[in-house]
Amino acid sequence: MSETYNILVAQSGGPTSAINASLAGVIRAGRACKEIGTIYGAINGIEGVLERDLVDLTELLGEDDSVLDVLKISPAMYLGSCRYKLEEPEKAVNQLIPEYERIDDYTCIFNILTDYDIRYFFYIGGNDSMDTVMKLGKFGRLIDSPIRFIGIPKTIDNDLPVTDHTPGYGSAARFVATSMMEMAYDTSIYSIKSVLIVEIMGRDAGWLTAASALARTSFSEAPHLIYLPEVDFSDSQFLVDLRGKLKDHEHVIVAVSEGVHYADGTYVSMHSAQKDQFGHTMLSGAGGYLASLVHRKIGCKVRSVELNVLQRCAAHVSSLTDLNEAEELGKRAVYGAIEGRSEQLIYLKRLETEDGSYQVEYDFADVAEAANKEKKMPLSMIAPGGNDITEEFLKYVRPLIQGEPTIEYQNGIPVYLSIKHLKV
Amino acid sequence: MSETYNILVAQSGGPTSAINASLAGVIRAGRACKEIGTIYGAINGIEGVLERDLVDLTELLGEDDSVLDVLKISPAMYLGSCRYKLEEPEKAVNQLIPEYERIDDYTCIFNILTDYDIRYFFYIGGNDSMDTVMKLGKFGRLIDSPIRFIGIPKTIDNDLPVTDHTPGYGSAARFVATSMMEMAYDTSIYSIKSVLIVEIMGRDAGWLTAASALARTSFSEAPHLIYLPEVDFSDSQFLVDLRGKLKDHEHVIVAVSEGVHYADGTYVSMHSAQKDQFGHTMLSGAGGYLASLVHRKIGCKVRSVELNVLQRCAAHVSSLTDLNEAEELGKRAVYGAIEGRSEQLIYLKRLETEDGSYQVEYDFADVAEAANKEKKMPLSMIAPGGNDITEEFLKYVRPLIQGEPTIEYQNGIPVYLSIKHLKV
Repeated sequence: MSETYNILVAQSGGPTSAINASLAGVIRAGRACKEIGTIYGAINGIEGVLERDLVDLTELLGEDDSVLDVLKISPAMYLGSCRYKLEEPEKAVNQLIPEYERIDDYTCIFNILTDYDIRYFFYIGGNDSMDTVMKLGKFGRLIDSPIRFIGIPKTIDNDLPVTDHTPGYGSAARFVATSMMEMAYDTSIYSIKSVLIVEIMGRDAGWLTAASALARTSFSEAPHLIYLPEVDFSDSQFLVDLRGKLKDHEHVIVAVSEGVHYADGTYVSMHSAQKDQFGHTMLSGAGGYLASLVHRKIGCKVRSVELNVLQRCAAHVSSLTDLNEAEELGKRAVYGAIEGRSEQLIYLKRLETEDGSYQVEYDFADVAEAANKEKKMPLSMIAPGGNDITEEFLKYVRPLIQGEPTIEYQNGIPVYLSIKHLKV
Repeated sequence: MSETYNILVAQSGGPTSAINASLAGVIRAGRACKEIGTIYGAINGIEGVLERDLVDLTELLGEDDSVLDVLKISPAMYLGSCRYKLEEPEKAVNQLIPEYERIDDYTCIFNILTDYDIRYFFYIGGNDSMDTVMKLGKFGRLIDSPIRFIGIPKTIDNDLPVTDHTPGYGSAARFVATSMMEMAYDTSIYSIKSVLIVEIMGRDAGWLTAASALARTSFSEAPHLIYLPEVDFSDSQFLVDLRGKLKDHEHVIVAVSEGVHYADGTYVSMHSAQKDQFGHTMLSGAGGYLASLVHRKIGCKVRSVELNVLQRCAAHVSSLTDLNEAEELGKRAVYGAIEGRSEQLIYLKRLETEDGSYQVEYDFADVAEAANKEKKMPLSMIAPGGNDITEEFLKYVRPLIQGEPTIEYQNGIPVYLSIKHLKV
C-alpha cells in the first residue's frame, strides 16, 4: 500500500477576487494526485493553525468538482484571513533548548501539522504571507521536518517582487478601468466645467491607480491625470496640471493613489486630517483633500469618489485571465511540493513572443526573494511629467484584464459560494 | 403624398443606466412609423432647444439598427442633460401681449420647434423634467399649437408618482444589491468585530437604499440595519440597534440613505460638516458621520463606503428587465403621441396576476400628476422599528433587477456608444 500525506492550505492578508481561484487550484490538483490523502484548510490563516481550527475541505465542499467552479469566481476568502507575524525562527529554535516546556508558535504549529499528518503546506497571500512561508520553512529545516512549505502569491496591489504580476491585480484593474470609463460617461452629461477626483487603493505602489488608464477609449481620455505614490506629489504642480487640462476639456477626471505623498514623505491624506464637531480627527483621504483644494483654488464643480473595498471584492467584473492564472498557480504549487520543493514561491513569468502576444509560464523561486519586499512601478512606466503612465505600462497591463468568467445569477445577483463556516 | 412630421427627443436630470434605452425605443418606433420624418435630438435637454443645438439622430447614429442595441446598454445620457426650470407659461403668455418684441423661453422654443417641423416632443427625465413637459404642453395649448408633448419617466430614485416604478431604478438597485453582497463577503474574512456603513443615494426617498436588502442570501443577512429618509433618524437609537446586532454578528453592515435626517429636519450629513485645516467646511456625508460615531461610542473597527456615482452609471451590471421596460416606454410614447396624446406621461402599471408572477402594462396619465411631486416609500414597506424593510418591499423590488443584458467587451472593458458629440 502506497503512503499518502495530507495537504494544509490557508489564505492570508487582504482579499482579492482571485484568491479563491488559487484555493480551487490546490484542491483540484490535490484531488488528482494519488500521493495526497486529505486536503485540510485552516480557518483564518496561520491563526487558525495555532487554534487547531482546521477543516476537511472535501467534507466542507463535497466531492462534486463543479462546486470548485463556483469557488473559483467567489470574492473574498473562503477560508478567512489573518494578519499575524511570526517571530524569527532562529530565536524560537534557540528557546527550545533552555526552556523546553514553553510552547512557542513554531512548536505549536509543527505539533499540529504532525498530528494532522500534513506534508504539504500552501499559503496564499502577499508579502507578509510570504514571510510566514519563509519562516516556517526555515524553522522546519532547523528541526529536520519533512514538511514542505510553498507560497502562492496574491494581492490587488501587484507589489510582489519576482512574479510578473500578482493574481488579484488583473481583476481589481478590470473593476477600476470599467468604473473609470463609466464615470467618464457620467461626468459628461452637463455642459458645465467639472473635475472628478477618483481615489484608488495602493499605499506604496501605484499599479492599481495606473490601471485606470485602461479606461481610455476613442471617446474619452479619462483619466486625464494620474498621480502615483512613486512620484512626490505637489499641490501647486497638481493645480498647474489641472488648469492645463481644463483648458482643453470640459470634464477632467483625476486618478489618485490613496498613498500619494509630498517630497517630505507626508501623505496627502494625512494633510487632509479633519476635525468633526466634537474635535475628533477624521481622515477624508487624498481624494477628499484634493477636491477641497480644487474647490478653493479653482472654484469649479468638483466631486471626489473613493472606489474603496469594491476594488478588491467586485467579483462580478473579474478578469478571466486573472482567475485562470490564479487557479493554475494553485495547481502548480501542489505539483512542485510533491516534486520536493519547499521554501519556494510559485510565480508567473511573462514570455517574450515573436508576435508580441501575451503568454506566461509558471516557475518557482526562493520565497525569501518575495517576503517583506515591495515592487514599485518602474520609472519607464511613468510619464516624464509624473502625472500619467506610458505606453509600456499599457502593454504590460492590458492582457491582464481580458476575458469574462461565467457567473450564474439567482434573483438578479451573482451566485457565490457561501462562507457560513466563517464567523459572519 | 402623405404628410410626415418630425420628432424631437431630449433627456434631462441625473443619469441612469436605462435612460438611453428609452431613447433607443423612441428612435426605433419613430423609424418604424410612416407618419414620422426626421428624428432630432436636442443636446443638453431644453437648454439645447433654446440654443438650437439639435442633431439629426439618424445622421449621428447611422441607419444600422444594431447601433441602437449598443445605445440601449450605454450608461449616462447620449444627448446630455441640463437642469433648467421654465417659468410659468401663463406668465409668459401674458407677457406676449404688452411687449411682443421680448422673446421669452416659450416663444423661442416654439419658434425653433416650428422651424424644424416638430410635431412630437419627448422628454425623458424625472420630476423636474415632467414639469417642463407640463409647462410646454400648457403653453402650446394656450397658443393653439399642434405640437404634442409626452414625458418618459426615469430616475434611479424611484420617487416619481403614478408609475409603479421608474426606469433606471432597477439597474441602480441591481448594482447596490450586488455590491452590498460582495462587501458582505469582503467584511467576513477577519475574525474581529467590525462595522461597515454603506451610504446610498436618495435624498428624500429611501427606495434605492432599501434595495440593498436584495443582497440578503442564505449566507449573509447583510445589510443588518437599513435607515431611510422616510423615518426620523436618532443617533442614540442607531447605537442601540447596532449594539444589538453586534451581539449576534461578528460583522455588521449598515445601509444608510444620504438623506437621513433627525426629527427636527436636520440632515445627518449636515451634522457631520467638518472643517479642514484651513477652516473650510467639507461635507463627509451621513456614512462618514455615523462611522465616526461608532468609532467614538463603540470603538470597534469601522469603515464607511459611499457607493457614489457608480450607482447611476455602472451599466455593466444593469437589469435587463429595467432596460427592456425603458425601451418599451420610449416606443409606446411615440405610438401615443401619434394617436394624438399630449401633456401626458407614459408609465408602468403592475398587474395583479393569479400566480403572483411579475407583469406590467403601459398606460398614459396626465403629466401634471407626476410633475414636481415625490413618491416616498409607504410605511407598509418599512419595518416597525424603522431600521429595516418588509417582505412586501422585497416582493415589489425583486422582479425589477432580473436579467443580464448582453454586453460586448473590447480590451477587457464594456463597449458603449461614444458620446463624443457632447463637450467632453
